[in-house]
Amino acid sequence: MTQPTQPVFRYAVRSDLPAIVALLADDEKGKTRENLTDPLPDIYGNAFDAMEATNTDALPNKYLLAIINDQIVGCLQLTLIPGLSRQGRLRAQIEGVRVSSSCRGQKIGEAMILRAIDISRDLGASLMQFTTDKTRADAHRFYQRLGFVASHEGMKRDL
Amino acid sequence: MTQPTQPVFRYAVRSDLPAIVALLADDEKGKTRENLTDPLPDIYGNAFDAMEATNTDALPNKYLLAIINDQIVGCLQLTLIPGLSRQGRLRAQIEGVRVSSSCRGQKIGEAMILRAIDISRDLGASLMQFTTDKTRADAHRFYQRLGFVASHEGMKRDL
Repeated sequence: MTQPTQPVFRYAVRSDLPAIVALLADDEKGKTRENLTDPLPDIYGNAFDAMEATNTDALPNKYLLAIINDQIVGCLQLTLIPGLSRQGRLRAQIEGVRVSSSCRGQKIGEAMILRAIDISRDLGASLMQFTTDKTRADAHRFYQRLGFVASHEGMKRDL
Repeated sequence: MTQPTQPVFRYAVRSDLPAIVALLADDEKGKTRENLTDPLPDIYGNAFDAMEATNTDALPNKYLLAIINDQIVGCLQLTLIPGLSRQGRLRAQIEGVRVSSSCRGQKIGEAMILRAIDISRDLGASLMQFTTDKTRADAHRFYQRLGFVASHEGMKRDL
């Protein structure tokens, strides 16, 4: 029996944008939210540049990519947020977690979350948090298996 | 009938730390989470410095303070987070929202949230988000009146 190939991980660079947006759109909710054209709309490049503007190695706001056979098969945005509450606890926040629909069921998402946890711990974070749409029941079970607790309401408001 | 005094707002500086931590601790949950000593433990100053390290005027990660008669009566952490999802939407996130227990019922919290919304809109954010403990039912009603929707689960995991 062959084991699934383990992904390798690296942070995204600007030239990865088309692959990342394709992943973001490869999702039940993302498909109606993204605008996957060739070339991509400038809004994505502008957003990437804004991420870079506040980025440091110690406090990243970066896309982490999972790669198998030189193909980008998964992504998540990892943001380390310093703050004062809970005795100045450094928070790690994730967003935009995606695995390519052609590669699901291979534990790539799990490996990616565990890698994000390792990176965050190494940077001194003691809490990881995110919000997930209440309709994503499968995702909730996935995260609960990885030790996350739905202890909070995730509230949003368009501005 | 006299109207409640309207607060004025400014961003925190390092010398505001004792007042901010006092506010964070002036709360049912915060009172067990914070460490309000004189002088404050260094962890708070270190966390403030970490916030400053990734701060820009365009992409703040700052405490907004509500002030009445030169007294700090409320605070919230406002973080603008650029990212790629939802067509590169800039998100505004709030955290550590507090109003002094001696000043509640004067709509200071509402004024503070509305000010954070105005600042975030001016900086180009189109979404505001936060997580709030599921046991804080009064807070949920407060935020729902201000247009927030509990559309997401807020998931957390200690690292």
